[in-house]
Amino acid sequence: MTERLVVIGGDAAGMTAASQARRGRGPEELEIVVFERGGDTSYSACGIPYWIGEVVDERSTLVVRTPEEFRERQDIDARIHHQVVAIDTDARTVRVRDLGAGTEIDERYDQLMIATGASPNRPDLPGIDGPAVFGVQTLDDGQAIIDHLDALGLDRAPRAVIIGAGYIGLEIAEAFATRAMEVHVVERSARPMNTIDPDMGDRIAEAMAGMGITLHTSTAVASVERDEGGALRAVATSAGELAADVVVLGTGARPNSDLARAAGIPTGPTGGIRVDVRQRTGVDRVWAAGDCAEVHHLVTRRPAAIALGTIANKTGRVAGINLGGGYETFPGVLGTAITKVCGLEVSRTGLGESEARTAGYEPVCTVVESTTTAGYWPTAEPIAVKMIAERHTGRLLGAQIVGEAGSGKRIDVLATALWNRMHVDDLLHVDLSYAPPFAPVWDPVLIAARKSWDAVEADRSRA
Amino acid sequence: MTERLVVIGGDAAGMTAASQARRGRGPEELEIVVFERGGDTSYSACGIPYWIGEVVDERSTLVVRTPEEFRERQDIDARIHHQVVAIDTDARTVRVRDLGAGTEIDERYDQLMIATGASPNRPDLPGIDGPAVFGVQTLDDGQAIIDHLDALGLDRAPRAVIIGAGYIGLEIAEAFATRAMEVHVVERSARPMNTIDPDMGDRIAEAMAGMGITLHTSTAVASVERDEGGALRAVATSAGELAADVVVLGTGARPNSDLARAAGIPTGPTGGIRVDVRQRTGVDRVWAAGDCAEVHHLVTRRPAAIALGTIANKTGRVAGINLGGGYETFPGVLGTAITKVCGLEVSRTGLGESEARTAGYEPVCTVVESTTTAGYWPTAEPIAVKMIAERHTGRLLGAQIVGEAGSGKRIDVLATALWNRMHVDDLLHVDLSYAPPFAPVWDPVLIAARKSWDAVEADRSRA
Repeated sequence: MTERLVVIGGDAAGMTAASQARRGRGPEELEIVVFERGGDTSYSACGIPYWIGEVVDERSTLVVRTPEEFRERQDIDARIHHQVVAIDTDARTVRVRDLGAGTEIDERYDQLMIATGASPNRPDLPGIDGPAVFGVQTLDDGQAIIDHLDALGLDRAPRAVIIGAGYIGLEIAEAFATRAMEVHVVERSARPMNTIDPDMGDRIAEAMAGMGITLHTSTAVASVERDEGGALRAVATSAGELAADVVVLGTGARPNSDLARAAGIPTGPTGGIRVDVRQRTGVDRVWAAGDCAEVHHLVTRRPAAIALGTIANKTGRVAGINLGGGYETFPGVLGTAITKVCGLEVSRTGLGESEARTAGYEPVCTVVESTTTAGYWPTAEPIAVKMIAERHTGRLLGAQIVGEAGSGKRIDVLATALWNRMHVDDLLHVDLSYAPPFAPVWDPVLIAARKSWDAVEADRSRA
Repeated sequence: MTERLVVIGGDAAGMTAASQARRGRGPEELEIVVFERGGDTSYSACGIPYWIGEVVDERSTLVVRTPEEFRERQDIDARIHHQVVAIDTDARTVRVRDLGAGTEIDERYDQLMIATGASPNRPDLPGIDGPAVFGVQTLDDGQAIIDHLDALGLDRAPRAVIIGAGYIGLEIAEAFATRAMEVHVVERSARPMNTIDPDMGDRIAEAMAGMGITLHTSTAVASVERDEGGALRAVATSAGELAADVVVLGTGARPNSDLARAAGIPTGPTGGIRVDVRQRTGVDRVWAAGDCAEVHHLVTRRPAAIALGTIANKTGRVAGINLGGGYETFPGVLGTAITKVCGLEVSRTGLGESEARTAGYEPVCTVVESTTTAGYWPTAEPIAVKMIAERHTGRLLGAQIVGEAGSGKRIDVLATALWNRMHVDDLLHVDLSYAPPFAPVWDPVLIAARKSWDAVEADRSRA
């Protein structure tokens, strides 16, 4: 008998799960239907800032695979502009609204995959719900921003206010700056990118200034100001009013778990849907993956909600293998992330200094400065590596890198070390590659491990 | 009472050991004397091809620290142009020849550090011992090549023949090509760079052709042909005679262990000086590190002789910590290496396919092709990753990368995985960093791990 898999959400997690399930079970065994409320399947949301910044030419470039391709190549019935509005786990049905026709019908499932993603946080501010205030989550969001900018038709540089200096906020700020806009970023904390420790964040603030972006730190947003017709005028902040032609929300994202929660599917302390190692939720035949689901953080050992394409792909793959009759488990995450912002490469893995304390560890922190290649190589660039090690033991807890071209991806060595619960004194011996165009004879990662171990030993001898 | 440490050899291993020993014990406790037969201390031999290729301007750029700096900053008495010609381990003396004055004296030691490095292999060929045939090991070698080229004064492109297509051979070939020379590389094996598996080596051959370098594979060198006055004329090979104005030896290097062997200090099967985990030789108070010493290979579990700056620095550091009264051990190596050749980045770690078989493993090998960044990113470049996994278990045994800018350093993730004895099915879950300018959503390393694991499983199900 043919089973029916219904997937809610047609981006990374949902379509990866669908594809993987199809690899395990053919159409005679498993019917696969995907409902996607937007107009695209399987797209690169992470590419949106670069589309806005005109690094990427066209919207279609960001689409990995269209609904037609899924249908033709894999016999997956992906229906765009279809929104699931309710789940009935007893009847095993979902209520689906056809956003074009405006009709609703119930669709039955044997297995249900929830991959509803995340939504940009919208701070509860007067005036925020009106035109010219954008989140950045879907290709439609990206298109709306581009259309808005194109329609401004000003004889001066358009003014943008970005609320929040997280990854997406800064990527959009840079995209706007490359479009010769006047850009202000308003951040509540004392430094940009609070996923990076303050001592590393200072370097980012400098780079932003170098690109002509005005950063307002320790600044709260009071309201979005509009004229009588409702048109955007300015953003009122604790540091004064900032004129604005466009506002973008860069204040992070939250898991889209309302639909699941309303159906009685358990969510966790992060607001994400709780899943087990095989991506099963707490309700029989219901699975979840991607931004809407919690992940296990391997260093804090607690659930986390992290909206990232890699994790969506990995957890979608695990769910899909299991849905396809295989067996796979997802071990968890380290909180690795990387971004390019204002000429800097910024990356992190594991815990920052205060995150380590919050998780109950006592960290010993060190920062080293080095170069990406041999110092005499013509393309040598500065790189700073921060290492967070556990007191007494020297266990690696996290690392952060800020530097120029060739810096950021070195975080992967530290992620792999962290994955293996390495201690910094072992890490400093690892046989990493060296040649003058690629690294100093001691790679910056190894220099960082040496300094970290010295600090752990010095701390020990004081104790 | 002040002890006296004598160091033989003033490059990476010797000077690192001396510096590290000094950090542990001040001048009142430890006198440190270094004898270096050449004219430089602590230089980057790996930079010589780039000096010849005019990427690096001056000889002095490659010198990390001069004898004067060692004397002034660390109270280390580094004597250049002094060659140790004999060791007496009973009397605890070394016989030192002052190459300037031509005199010899005995110098006593309490601790002796041997860091005599490696020398280019010189194939036993008629005509090889004469002018215009060069090895590439010391800055003096580099200077000799540059002086020779400058003195040629030809009204046509100078012709070079490189014997051996190893790392150094290829780096020199590229340097000569950038100097608009006509370059021929003669290699006994069927493909260049026999430290890389044949299927990956083909890509290098293509890149060489693209740069106008003529590669003669499966070709033996018969003799170096000279005119009646002894001047270089050509290289005779099994594929015919190649006219030559300069010949460079790229046939690898062997440990300089003759001095130690003559003194009864045990050497191992690789020809290198045998050392324990603290870099002690088999003779009391005698230590060795760097290219002249053996290292433990963590995957073959056998001794290896690998002439590389990183290993020299690491083993020199371990010896120096111990000589300075501390305690440190060297765990071993993975055989990680990287080079840039004709626009390609080539790297490896662990064992290649045939090396794995020689070591007794049964390997399952896979190659994936991907891009260094998101496919739509403007600087996306091709990358190929080969993975060598153990049959049945899926344990990672080695990996090789050939690709364009942004490819090579990814080997460090695989080296770290190998260091931790990871299996490819665990590796495919590792939380590596992703953003469009840095990687596809599945990093090529993870794609390679997935394919490798699929192959291991397929092999299992056939078994």
